[in-house]
Amino acid sequence: MKKEAKKVVLAYSGGLDTSVAVKWLLENKAEEVITVVIDVGQKEENLEAIRDKALKIGASQSFIKDAKKEFVENYVWKALKANASYEFGYPLATAIARPLIAKLVNEVAQEVGADALAHGCTGKGNDQVRFELAWKALNPNAKIIAPAREWGAELLDRNKAIDYAQKHNIPISLTKKSPYSIDLNAWGKSIECGILEDPWVEAPEDAFSLTKPIKDTPNEPEYIEINFKQGIPTGINNKELDSLSLVEELNKIVGNHGIGRYDQIENRLVGIKSREIYEAPAATVLLRAHKELEYFVNPKDSMHFKSLIDQKYSELIYNGFWFSPLRNALDAFIEETQKKATGTIRVKLFKGNFQVVGRASENSLYNKKLASYGDEDIFDHSSAKGFINLLGLGIKTYYQK
Amino acid sequence: MKKEAKKVVLAYSGGLDTSVAVKWLLENKAEEVITVVIDVGQKEENLEAIRDKALKIGASQSFIKDAKKEFVENYVWKALKANASYEFGYPLATAIARPLIAKLVNEVAQEVGADALAHGCTGKGNDQVRFELAWKALNPNAKIIAPAREWGAELLDRNKAIDYAQKHNIPISLTKKSPYSIDLNAWGKSIECGILEDPWVEAPEDAFSLTKPIKDTPNEPEYIEINFKQGIPTGINNKELDSLSLVEELNKIVGNHGIGRYDQIENRLVGIKSREIYEAPAATVLLRAHKELEYFVNPKDSMHFKSLIDQKYSELIYNGFWFSPLRNALDAFIEETQKKATGTIRVKLFKGNFQVVGRASENSLYNKKLASYGDEDIFDHSSAKGFINLLGLGIKTYYQK
Amino acid sequence: MKKEAKKVVLAYSGGLDTSVAVKWLLENKAEEVITVVIDVGQKEENLEAIRDKALKIGASQSFIKDAKKEFVENYVWKALKANASYEFGYPLATAIARPLIAKLVNEVAQEVGADALAHGCTGKGNDQVRFELAWKALNPNAKIIAPAREWGAELLDRNKAIDYAQKHNIPISLTKKSPYSIDLNAWGKSIECGILEDPWVEAPEDAFSLTKPIKDTPNEPEYIEINFKQGIPTGINNKELDSLSLVEELNKIVGNHGIGRYDQIENRLVGIKSREIYEAPAATVLLRAHKELEYFVNPKDSMHFKSLIDQKYSELIYNGFWFSPLRNALDAFIEETQKKATGTIRVKLFKGNFQVVGRASENSLYNKKLASYGDEDIFDHSSAKGFINLLGLGIKTYYQK
Amino acid sequence: MKKEAKKVVLAYSGGLDTSVAVKWLLENKAEEVITVVIDVGQKEENLEAIRDKALKIGASQSFIKDAKKEFVENYVWKALKANASYEFGYPLATAIARPLIAKLVNEVAQEVGADALAHGCTGKGNDQVRFELAWKALNPNAKIIAPAREWGAELLDRNKAIDYAQKHNIPISLTKKSPYSIDLNAWGKSIECGILEDPWVEAPEDAFSLTKPIKDTPNEPEYIEINFKQGIPTGINNKELDSLSLVEELNKIVGNHGIGRYDQIENRLVGIKSREIYEAPAATVLLRAHKELEYFVNPKDSMHFKSLIDQKYSELIYNGFWFSPLRNALDAFIEETQKKATGTIRVKLFKGNFQVVGRASENSLYNKKLASYGDEDIFDHSSAKGFINLLGLGIKTYYQK
Repeated sequence: MKKEAKKVVLAYSGGLDTSVAVKWLLENKAEEVITVVIDVGQKEENLEAIRDKALKIGASQSFIKDAKKEFVENYVWKALKANASYEFGYPLATAIARPLIAKLVNEVAQEVGADALAHGCTGKGNDQVRFELAWKALNPNAKIIAPAREWGAELLDRNKAIDYAQKHNIPISLTKKSPYSIDLNAWGKSIECGILEDPWVEAPEDAFSLTKPIKDTPNEPEYIEINFKQGIPTGINNKELDSLSLVEELNKIVGNHGIGRYDQIENRLVGIKSREIYEAPAATVLLRAHKELEYFVNPKDSMHFKSLIDQKYSELIYNGFWFSPLRNALDAFIEETQKKATGTIRVKLFKGNFQVVGRASENSLYNKKLASYGDEDIFDHSSAKGFINLLGLGIKTYYQK
Repeated sequence: MKKEAKKVVLAYSGGLDTSVAVKWLLENKAEEVITVVIDVGQKEENLEAIRDKALKIGASQSFIKDAKKEFVENYVWKALKANASYEFGYPLATAIARPLIAKLVNEVAQEVGADALAHGCTGKGNDQVRFELAWKALNPNAKIIAPAREWGAELLDRNKAIDYAQKHNIPISLTKKSPYSIDLNAWGKSIECGILEDPWVEAPEDAFSLTKPIKDTPNEPEYIEINFKQGIPTGINNKELDSLSLVEELNKIVGNHGIGRYDQIENRLVGIKSREIYEAPAATVLLRAHKELEYFVNPKDSMHFKSLIDQKYSELIYNGFWFSPLRNALDAFIEETQKKATGTIRVKLFKGNFQVVGRASENSLYNKKLASYGDEDIFDHSSAKGFINLLGLGIKTYYQK
Repeated sequence: MKKEAKKVVLAYSGGLDTSVAVKWLLENKAEEVITVVIDVGQKEENLEAIRDKALKIGASQSFIKDAKKEFVENYVWKALKANASYEFGYPLATAIARPLIAKLVNEVAQEVGADALAHGCTGKGNDQVRFELAWKALNPNAKIIAPAREWGAELLDRNKAIDYAQKHNIPISLTKKSPYSIDLNAWGKSIECGILEDPWVEAPEDAFSLTKPIKDTPNEPEYIEINFKQGIPTGINNKELDSLSLVEELNKIVGNHGIGRYDQIENRLVGIKSREIYEAPAATVLLRAHKELEYFVNPKDSMHFKSLIDQKYSELIYNGFWFSPLRNALDAFIEETQKKATGTIRVKLFKGNFQVVGRASENSLYNKKLASYGDEDIFDHSSAKGFINLLGLGIKTYYQK
Repeated sequence: MKKEAKKVVLAYSGGLDTSVAVKWLLENKAEEVITVVIDVGQKEENLEAIRDKALKIGASQSFIKDAKKEFVENYVWKALKANASYEFGYPLATAIARPLIAKLVNEVAQEVGADALAHGCTGKGNDQVRFELAWKALNPNAKIIAPAREWGAELLDRNKAIDYAQKHNIPISLTKKSPYSIDLNAWGKSIECGILEDPWVEAPEDAFSLTKPIKDTPNEPEYIEINFKQGIPTGINNKELDSLSLVEELNKIVGNHGIGRYDQIENRLVGIKSREIYEAPAATVLLRAHKELEYFVNPKDSMHFKSLIDQKYSELIYNGFWFSPLRNALDAFIEETQKKATGTIRVKLFKGNFQVVGRASENSLYNKKLASYGDEDIFDHSSAKGFINLLGLGIKTYYQK
């Protein structure tokens, strides 16, 4: 029987689902399966072992790509400049990694001359959309296969997947399975499923790994200074750091104080509400610090309007429209607003809290002489009367009728 | 010499500025000055003494109005339903009280047949705008006098004001003057001036009074459940409370855990950036809990669009357009979205942090059977393919060119 | 063989597609088919004949519902208050009728105890979405069948459909088939297909029927006055008219001057661009006149913000979200803004053009004494200086750096 | 007596107001007055005579600057790419010229070492704001003088200004004074005052000069093709034209058909409503044609979001914030969206009407095979079901409750 695809490249994680997918694709869809693992900082201990696992299951080739630096510099920094977050603050860590993974998987597909692309996502999540919209942009004519969407009850259920794996000699991880579905990268972690599906129940402590429980955090506050250059973090406490090290270092420092947890009921793109737990220590502090700096050096109107730009940018990331002409246009707007965003933000970390406590920039628009009520006051108080008169003229005319 | 006004009613606080204003108005502007103190929860120990002080300085009449309940029910609750906050989270406590004060001062003016209204605000703040826009709406033809805007260097400086007070036998408060300029009401506190005008310096602990320093907060978390009915908080831990008691009680509970401090560089309406410190324990937790509930019971599109409504509502409050046909229209929109917002939000308070950890509502749109990846899954996975195909058709067509 | 549905109610037009659908449903999907024709002003000469035709093909029951008045009063007037139009001005005539048709079809379904609902739309248009989203709201558990979406090449092609009709003794209209696909109701007409699919070719004159060609229009201008009460048109030239008569009368008057044609490339909801021709004489003039009046009696801020509301409202109509809590909330906003919209707009009609040339309202906010540069000027010119100083303070501070 | 300014540069038009201002400034404000006339296409017959007039009145120097090309290329084209218009369609002709005039006047001021800048606008219009905000950006420390704002009743009244002129030997134009206040440039004309201040009265035919009355227009339609390259018009009927010639030519062609008149009640920045008449033949057709092309080559999401950008851009122009970091950021967004906007739009002009009747572009996203219902149909109809299912899942869940 002729298969739907000759050669399919699969975005591979090494987990149960994508491992089963390798075999299932070979049996049902493709003559040849090639896997690609993209390292975006998921901290898997043994990427080599994951690569080999795919080969054992039947992949004809199995690639690993270290994309950590590209992830931070070309994806995370753009999201940061856009103050990107969703609904109750989710910093979009998983969402922002998907287009990069899709892009690199597609690059492999083009190198090996594949005619199809595959991912392991189910039909009810956001990630399927992010993979496929990226591929529609980058390779509009490629066939896209989504095994998990076709499995139905047969394999979607974890126990049935394990049976299938055992039947087909697919190695199953020996480490104790987390009770949660997890996605991790340098910008943060998503935690779903299990007991978390009850929106009334507090997320158990074992759901978290990047942030300490508050009772175990230091008993003294820690102050850090984050240095920015044109909207991009370049150092901590005036020590320059490369992009990836900065994020990793900050994840440690901030997580140590128990900062960066989220618990939210979220509106997915596919029309359902889900309960999501996130951890994102570095992202949490960087996002607040960046916005602080941006406001410090830009006029009000620019920043108030930028909030609409930022909101649309966040939506594009969440909904999978990273590769789109609209995102490019938003980026052009955002870059203009970052030109002055050079300076330092001082943050206090303590017991799960953080607060911006100081800000400094050569481009600061804060003018003490204007703001002060003290001796130095240079503000023209008499202008206020005329200002209010005209500001209120429309309202006054309305209520006079 | 004929004075500009026959009878002026002054929004009075009992502080140095408005006390000097009483005398200054009599000397320069009006034949008769009547003062009104509005109690919006500023916790002044002795409102009677404040009233008498105005009479001693020369006011012909001096009123006190208890507006605490009206404040919470007709102003704060509306702001809460609109998730009202400004820029970095300021819950607009001072801003939302101004139109009420203006309204009640104007009511006195109409009762006593005054021809002018006065406030003690300077020319560089937002409050002058809020008073005057309210008066332009409620009494478009009244004369408005702003003594502090006319004083110039003569009296704007605190020391000169003290000299003036002493010269005119205006009693000066014997209690040690705060190094800050403070405004307090049931919804929160604004703290400005002094050392706070240096944006690099952390706000000293003595700037705060509603929230404990974290080191002094309880060493165990506290869980509270907040009950809402159609968007309005009605109880804590299933114990019904009247509006004012609920806010006051919550200020105590939440403040005890050190929650609700803000430190931000803010864009004032008059075109300057200022450094503002706020405390708002009850507001902080109620705003987050309210939004959580609202999202739990409304579809995505309603909530995402409401964020524009909320932003405009917040601007109107901040900028002083409370009495305006636009605010009425926004209220009508918001009321529609609150009809289902009945339920309970569970919040954890600990060491300066709070987190929503549970939510329950008879109108919940969270459907575990749709969201779950487990056995109960009723989601039609096959719909996803068609969904993504059409969602991405525009992008695909674009990149095919 | 058991059919998918026991009793299906079909939104019926009497045309080829829905006639074929009656038979096809009986053969493939349902044991019983009931048809409903909704009269929204499509000017079909013989609705009785259409009803009978369905019975002849095999429908067990066939209903006609006159919904013209309900259409204008509960759908069109709401769209008018929202200044509803899409992209290049399309007044949404077809779009706004769909939810009403869906509602009435569903009412029949509930009366006859049907378990399924059906429409004749294909998979690439907007109307399928409008029908189905309405049904998902009004009858969330009903089965929905879309025959034309399932037909595939077999029947989608017109010639094949005719063959099928002849084979099954389905009467085919004897009148010459229009070369276009047409939808008509009291608010306007949509014209698609045929030569119109070439975006470079001008729409031929035979595509139009509601508007005269300009060369045949009167050689003298005509002036009309349109009277509004709270946003709703109530009369022409001070003669009161009921809602439907007013729209029909205006269609004649305005169409006689050749006014109300649209030619646009439009972005459909399903991700494709299509070329659309519309005619909407009454709608064109009413929409402009309504907006003129609204602006005449409301302050700037209300109207500028309402433009966002209107845009969202138009999107909801276009995309089929008429029955949604968001539309209800938008309506609440809009109603607030119409309270003062009582007055008269004078319009000049001539040779395909129309222009608002006069406006009058007891609630007018136009104040000649404020606006005039002449003798009566009551504007305080000196306020302008202070106004500009504070308006420009942010920019000045920025450029001083 | 020491004057407020040593050397003031005045934006000069040669009309009564700015001529009186030259003398008044010398008498009251400055030791030396220098005038600058900026030619932005106002079609004054004798700019040399205007220059000399200023010298006769007492100006120490008098400059003319031809800025017509700079106006079209650096101001008008930017406005066109932003589809810039205000409220009921005003193409912002006067508004978009003000920042250029302000810039060039300031350049003269810097060349001659002036310490003050002056304009002849009154306190109730928008132009004062546009001049002054530009100067605050370009020369934040310059003194700004607005004679007409200080005149008061003495000179604001036209008759009194004539008396003053005669008393001071200021030459008064011998040509019959227009009953209107007029501003003209290459992009259009504004007409105010006189009978136009009555919003119920139709604008008389003598208010118009760029557009023929419809009864005098040709009796046959004229078709033109407008060629664009990256959003900029480059030719008519495939004949390349330089920017200024193209606009001038188009003003003639379009005006000959009586197209491009506006009559609107407008919300000024200073809080008043005014009645404005505009003529803008070229602008009217170019704006529609440009938008048509833009939509033809960009995906829906880009264009729908750009409408917010365009609206803000228009506001910035109207309100005088041309020189601002926000405008720069919006420009960056807009430029991105113009990259594909190369192609030709065919327009029909006839009897005061115009209609886009054809469009062609190598970057067209219109795909007949997707849009057509005919034989060539390549659209996947089956995707629609899944699309609608997920699109409507939120609504369905809501109404199921």
